[in-house]
Amino acid sequence: MTYLPVTSARPEPLRVGLIGAGWMGSFHAKSLAQRIPDASLAAIADPALESAQPLAAELGVAHVTADPGDLFADPEIDAVVIAAPARFHAQLAIAAARAGKHVFCEKPASLDLDEFARVEQAVGEGGIHWQVGFNRRYAADFLAARRDVADGVVGTPQLLRSLTRDPGTGSIRNADRVPHGTIFVETLIHDFDALNWFNSGAEPVSVYVAADALVEPELRGMGFIDTAVVTIRYENGAIAAAEANYSALYGYDVRGEVFGSRGMVQAGRATETAALRFGAKGLSAETPRLNIELFADAYTAELADFVGQVRAKRDGGEAPDHGVPLTPGLADARRALAVARACIESVESGEAVRVAAILGG
Amino acid sequence: MTYLPVTSARPEPLRVGLIGAGWMGSFHAKSLAQRIPDASLAAIADPALESAQPLAAELGVAHVTADPGDLFADPEIDAVVIAAPARFHAQLAIAAARAGKHVFCEKPASLDLDEFARVEQAVGEGGIHWQVGFNRRYAADFLAARRDVADGVVGTPQLLRSLTRDPGTGSIRNADRVPHGTIFVETLIHDFDALNWFNSGAEPVSVYVAADALVEPELRGMGFIDTAVVTIRYENGAIAAAEANYSALYGYDVRGEVFGSRGMVQAGRATETAALRFGAKGLSAETPRLNIELFADAYTAELADFVGQVRAKRDGGEAPDHGVPLTPGLADARRALAVARACIESVESGEAVRVAAILGG
Amino acid sequence: MTYLPVTSARPEPLRVGLIGAGWMGSFHAKSLAQRIPDASLAAIADPALESAQPLAAELGVAHVTADPGDLFADPEIDAVVIAAPARFHAQLAIAAARAGKHVFCEKPASLDLDEFARVEQAVGEGGIHWQVGFNRRYAADFLAARRDVADGVVGTPQLLRSLTRDPGTGSIRNADRVPHGTIFVETLIHDFDALNWFNSGAEPVSVYVAADALVEPELRGMGFIDTAVVTIRYENGAIAAAEANYSALYGYDVRGEVFGSRGMVQAGRATETAALRFGAKGLSAETPRLNIELFADAYTAELADFVGQVRAKRDGGEAPDHGVPLTPGLADARRALAVARACIESVESGEAVRVAAILGG
Amino acid sequence: MTYLPVTSARPEPLRVGLIGAGWMGSFHAKSLAQRIPDASLAAIADPALESAQPLAAELGVAHVTADPGDLFADPEIDAVVIAAPARFHAQLAIAAARAGKHVFCEKPASLDLDEFARVEQAVGEGGIHWQVGFNRRYAADFLAARRDVADGVVGTPQLLRSLTRDPGTGSIRNADRVPHGTIFVETLIHDFDALNWFNSGAEPVSVYVAADALVEPELRGMGFIDTAVVTIRYENGAIAAAEANYSALYGYDVRGEVFGSRGMVQAGRATETAALRFGAKGLSAETPRLNIELFADAYTAELADFVGQVRAKRDGGEAPDHGVPLTPGLADARRALAVARACIESVESGEAVRVAAILGG
Repeated sequence: MTYLPVTSARPEPLRVGLIGAGWMGSFHAKSLAQRIPDASLAAIADPALESAQPLAAELGVAHVTADPGDLFADPEIDAVVIAAPARFHAQLAIAAARAGKHVFCEKPASLDLDEFARVEQAVGEGGIHWQVGFNRRYAADFLAARRDVADGVVGTPQLLRSLTRDPGTGSIRNADRVPHGTIFVETLIHDFDALNWFNSGAEPVSVYVAADALVEPELRGMGFIDTAVVTIRYENGAIAAAEANYSALYGYDVRGEVFGSRGMVQAGRATETAALRFGAKGLSAETPRLNIELFADAYTAELADFVGQVRAKRDGGEAPDHGVPLTPGLADARRALAVARACIESVESGEAVRVAAILGG
Repeated sequence: MTYLPVTSARPEPLRVGLIGAGWMGSFHAKSLAQRIPDASLAAIADPALESAQPLAAELGVAHVTADPGDLFADPEIDAVVIAAPARFHAQLAIAAARAGKHVFCEKPASLDLDEFARVEQAVGEGGIHWQVGFNRRYAADFLAARRDVADGVVGTPQLLRSLTRDPGTGSIRNADRVPHGTIFVETLIHDFDALNWFNSGAEPVSVYVAADALVEPELRGMGFIDTAVVTIRYENGAIAAAEANYSALYGYDVRGEVFGSRGMVQAGRATETAALRFGAKGLSAETPRLNIELFADAYTAELADFVGQVRAKRDGGEAPDHGVPLTPGLADARRALAVARACIESVESGEAVRVAAILGG
Repeated sequence: MTYLPVTSARPEPLRVGLIGAGWMGSFHAKSLAQRIPDASLAAIADPALESAQPLAAELGVAHVTADPGDLFADPEIDAVVIAAPARFHAQLAIAAARAGKHVFCEKPASLDLDEFARVEQAVGEGGIHWQVGFNRRYAADFLAARRDVADGVVGTPQLLRSLTRDPGTGSIRNADRVPHGTIFVETLIHDFDALNWFNSGAEPVSVYVAADALVEPELRGMGFIDTAVVTIRYENGAIAAAEANYSALYGYDVRGEVFGSRGMVQAGRATETAALRFGAKGLSAETPRLNIELFADAYTAELADFVGQVRAKRDGGEAPDHGVPLTPGLADARRALAVARACIESVESGEAVRVAAILGG
Repeated sequence: MTYLPVTSARPEPLRVGLIGAGWMGSFHAKSLAQRIPDASLAAIADPALESAQPLAAELGVAHVTADPGDLFADPEIDAVVIAAPARFHAQLAIAAARAGKHVFCEKPASLDLDEFARVEQAVGEGGIHWQVGFNRRYAADFLAARRDVADGVVGTPQLLRSLTRDPGTGSIRNADRVPHGTIFVETLIHDFDALNWFNSGAEPVSVYVAADALVEPELRGMGFIDTAVVTIRYENGAIAAAEANYSALYGYDVRGEVFGSRGMVQAGRATETAALRFGAKGLSAETPRLNIELFADAYTAELADFVGQVRAKRDGGEAPDHGVPLTPGLADARRALAVARACIESVESGEAVRVAAILGG
C-alpha cells in the first residue's frame, strides 16, 4: 500500500457535559455526539439515571452521573449544556461559571430577575462564555428575515408579530401542575426574544396581556393560562403582538413578522415539506408537528455556534461571524425575561406594565 | 325572419340613487350601472357636481343633483347607497329611512353610538332594509373561511387576528386634517366586524389599544394615529388582535385568521395574481395595490346582496341565502362601532376599556 | 326637485347575436347582457329552443330563433358570438362575414385547415373583425406572465410548458361519441395557442405526440384519446411540452411556464381562493373546479376586448391597447390549428411531424 | 467523582473509503466523517492529491492515496463511495466488488449497458451491497410524494413530470469538452430514476427526445446538448415528460409530479427558506442555488441508508425499512441507464426509440 501520511488539521473537540437528559437534553446530546464535529459529549448528568444511562450507551458517552456537580469538578470537561427543568437553570449556570465551565443554557435563563442577576455576576467573574437557547434565531427563515431587516428591507420597524402554537391534542397533560406564568417564561419567551432581536437596538417599554385558560377552562380558577396575547411597546415606537396557545391540533406553528417604513418580512413554515397533494377534496399537505422536527437544524446550529464561540474564546481565534447579531447572551436573556415577568404582572393587575419597573428602573 | 317572441322573466331593476361620487362612490356607481343586472343607477347626488356630472354622463345616469334630498323626494327611487364622507352617514341614513328608501351605507354607519341609536330607530320606523359596507365578508377567501368556521373546522374560537395595512408612500396626505380616531372608526372597523363575524355569537367584552403616529411622528402631539394594535376579549373567552397601519409600501394588505380548539383558517391574498417570476435575484411576484382591486368582487357582491335583500323585502320573495350569516345589519354595525369607540377611550386612558361601558351597559 | 340634466356620453352598445346557447354560450350570453356595458345581447339562435328561450327570458333578450341565418339577416345586429358545436364554427363564421357581421368565434376556429382558409378569405372580403376564444390570454396570471416575457424577464425562451387537466369523475360521459382528435383540436388547442403566444414571433416547426386512452382504456381500440403529451419545437430553438388529460378528480388544472436565458415565469392557480385551512390532518384548501369559475374573468375580458375592437373598427376610434399582443386573430387561430392537426398526424404515424407539411409548406 | 460506568451500545462504525475528492466527493467525505454516526471515513483516494490531502487533514482522515487500488487492498476498509468521474464508475465498482468491498456509486452507475452488465456480474459474485446515488428519492418532499403514491393518493399513474434545471450564468464552463450525451447520462438520469420510481412496477417502453444547444448554440454543430425534453411511455400506459437545461439563472430547480386516476402529487421546493419579503416592488424570496444546498439532507440520507444497508447485510440485522421501495440498486440503475441510452439514440435518429431495443430485448 502506498497510503500517504496525513497530518490532521483538526483541533481537539470541545468536551461538553450535558445536564438533563429529557426531551431537549436528548436532542442536544445527539447533536453534541453526532452532529457537531468540533464537540464531543463527555458525560451526562441526570438524576433520572434510567434515562441517562441508555442515552449514554446509545451515543457511546463514557460517563453518566446523577450529580451535575461531577461535571463541574471534572477537569476534562470544557463546557456544559444545561437542559434540566427551568427552575434549576440559574443555579446550575452559577455553579458551572464558578467552576470555569462555559455554559449553554436552555431557555429560560432563570425564572426571576434577581436570580438572573446572580447568573450575570457569576458569568462575569468566571470569565466564561454563556449563551441561551433562543433557537429561533438560528432557523433559516428567521435568520433570513433578520438579515433582511439589517439590510434595510423593512426600514424602521413599526409593527411586529410573533406566535407560538404548540401542538396539542385538545387537552394539556398535567396542566394542573404547570407552574404559574409558564406560558410567558417558558413559551412566549421565545417570541419575546425574536421580537427584541428583530427590533434590535430598541428596548421593550411596556406590555399588556390578555390571557386565559381556554384549552383547560376548568383550571382557570387556579390561575392556569394556556392562551395569551401580549402587546409590547418599544422605545422606537414599534408595537409588537405576541401570541401563544398550548393546543394546536394541526401541529407546531411558529411565525414571525416585521413591518416597517419600507416593507415587511415574514418567517414561519406552514408545511412540513414542499410536497403537495391534490385529490377529490382539493389540495392538502403535511404540517410540521414537533419542535425537534421544525427546528432540528436550528437546535443544531445554535449548539454549533456555541462550540465555535467557546473555542474562539478559549483558543483566541475568530468567533463565528454571522453578519448580523446572532449569539444570544446575557443581555438578550435579561431583556426577554423582563418582558415575561412584566407579562405576569400585567395578568395580575389587568393593566399595562412598564418593563423598566420590573427591572427596578 | 323567424324570430320568436320572448316574454321577459326579468323583474324591474331596483332603482338606486347614489349619494357621494368620490372614490368608493364612483366604484359603487359603476357596479350599480354595469355590474349588477337587477339594479339601475337612477341618480347621483354630490355637492361636487364637477365629479358627479361626468360620472353620470359616462354611465348614462339620467339625473344629477347637489342635494341628496332630491333622491329622498324622488318616488322613482327605491333605495340609496350612501358613500358620502363618514360624518354624514348617519343623518343621511335617517333621512332616507324617513323617506322610505332602503339604505346601503358605507362604513362607518355613524361616528358615534348615540347618533347610531337614532339611525336604528329611523330604520325601524321606516320599515326599510338597512345594510352596512363591511365588504370583507363578501371576499371569496374571507367567506370561505367563515364557512369553514360554521362547518366546525376551527372548533371553538380561541385566538383571532385581523389586519389592515393601507398602501402608502411613506407619508399620509392631509394627515393633519384626518379626524381623531379615524383609524378605529374608519379603518379598523372593518377588522372589528370581521373578528365579530368570525367569532359569531360572542359579544366583544373589552379592548386594549397600543397606538401611535409612526408614519407621521411629528403629528403625534396633536393626537394623530397611523398605527394601532388592538386586543379584544370576547365573552366566549376568545382573544383577538387587530392591527392597522396607514403606509404599507408593498400595497394593500388585509388578512384574517381564526384559531380554535379544532384547527385554524386563514384569509388574505398575498399576491395580485397567481403569476410567479424567477430571475437572477430569486422569486418575485406582484402584490395587491388598491382596495378596489383587492376587493373588486367583494364590493360588487355586497351591493348585489343588498339589491337581492331589498327586492325580497319589497316583493315578498326569498332573500339571498348564503349558508352562513352574511348581510351586515344594524346589530353588526353597532357592535363594530362600539369596539371602535372603546378603542378611542382606551387610547385616551391607556387602559383596557369595557365595551359594555361604551354601550351604556 | 332640482335634478340637473345629464347628457349621456355613452355610445350605443354593440348589438350582438349569440349562436349556440350551451355551456359556453350561456356564459357568454350573461356576459353580453350583464357584464359588458358596451354591448347588448340582441338575439339568441339555437336549434334547441328549449334552452334558448328560458335563457333569453332570464336575460331580457328580445329575440330567439332556431336559425342563425336570422341573425345574419338582421340589420339591427352588429356582431355575432359563435358558440355552436365546433364542427359548425367555420361555416357560421363564413356566413357571418358575408353578412358583414363581426365575429367572435369560440375555439377551435375550424376543425381543418382548408376550411379555415375559406374563413380567412371570407373575413378578408367581409372587412370584419374576427376573433377566436383563446381565453387564457385574458387570465390575469397568464397575461402578467406574458407581460413579463415582453419585459425581458425570461430572456430568449428555451423551454415552455402548458397543461390542461379537465375536471373529471374517473369516467368520461359519451366518450365513445367524442370525435377523433378532439383532445388536440378542442382541448390542447388552448395550450398550443398559449405556447405560441408566450413564444411570440417564433413559428412552431414540428410536433411529436404520445397519447392514449387511460381514463377509458376500453375505447383505445376505436382511437379515443383522453391523455396526451405533445412536444413542440419552435424555429427559435425553444422546445415546448403540452399535456392534457380528461379526468382530474381534483378539479380544473391549467398552467403555463416559460423558461429562458434570463429566468422563468409561471401562470396557473392551484387554489380556488386564498383561504387556507389547518386541521388535525394538516393543511388543506379548495381547488378550482370549473372552467367558468377559474376563467370567469378571462371569458368576460375576451368578449369585452372583442366589443372594444369592433367598436374601434366600426367607429374609427382607438382599439384597446393591452401593451402586449393580445387579441387572438386569424393568424393565431391558424397557427394553433396547424399544431393540432400535426398532432393528429403524429398520433397516426407515431413519428414527429413537421407543421409546415400540414400547412402545405 | 461518582461517574457511573457506561457500557457502550454503539457498534463499530462502518469503515468507508472515498474514491474521488471533487465536488460531490468532498460533500460525501464530510457526511461520512461528521454527519453519519455509524460510519467513519478511513481513507481518501484521488489522483489529485492536492485536493485529497487538505480534505483529509480537515476531516481528520488518516490515509490518503492517489491509487484507489489501495482502498480495495486495505482489510480495514468495509466499503467504498465512488465519486470519481463518471467514466470510471463501472470499473471502480467492479474492482471494489471483486475485493469484497460494498459500493455506493455516484450516478451514473456506468456510461454504457454492456459495461454495466459486468458491474452486475461482479456485484453478484462479490456478494456485496451495491447502491447508486439517486439522491432525489431521499429528499423529504420527493419521499413524501412517493409515499402518497404508495398510499393510493394518485391512483393509477397516467402523467408524470420531472425536471432539472442546473444553476447557470448564461454560459457553460468547458462546454466544448462535455462528452456527448452527458445531459441524458449524467443529468436527466436523475429524472429518469425519479419517474421510474414514482411509476414503480411499470417498465419504460419507449422514449422520444427533442434536444438542442440553446445555451451554447455555437456548439450545436459538434453535437453538444444543453436543453432537452424527453417523452417516456411506460408499459402501464403512463406518459412522462422529463426536461433539463444547464443554465437556470434563478438557481437550482428540481421538480417532480405524478398525476393519476385519483389525484396528483407534486415535489420540488421553489424557495430557499420559508422567509418572504415584501417591498415597494412586491413580493420576493430567495431561491435554492446549489445542489448541495437543495439536497444537503438527501445526500446525507442516502449515505446513511447505505451504511445501514451494509451493516444489516454484514451483521445480519434488519435493514432500514422506509415503508416504500427506496434504496436504489442494480435494477434501478439499469432501468434509468437504459432510458438515457435510448435518449441518445433518439437524438441521433430523430425518432422514438424502444427501450427494450437498447437492452437487447
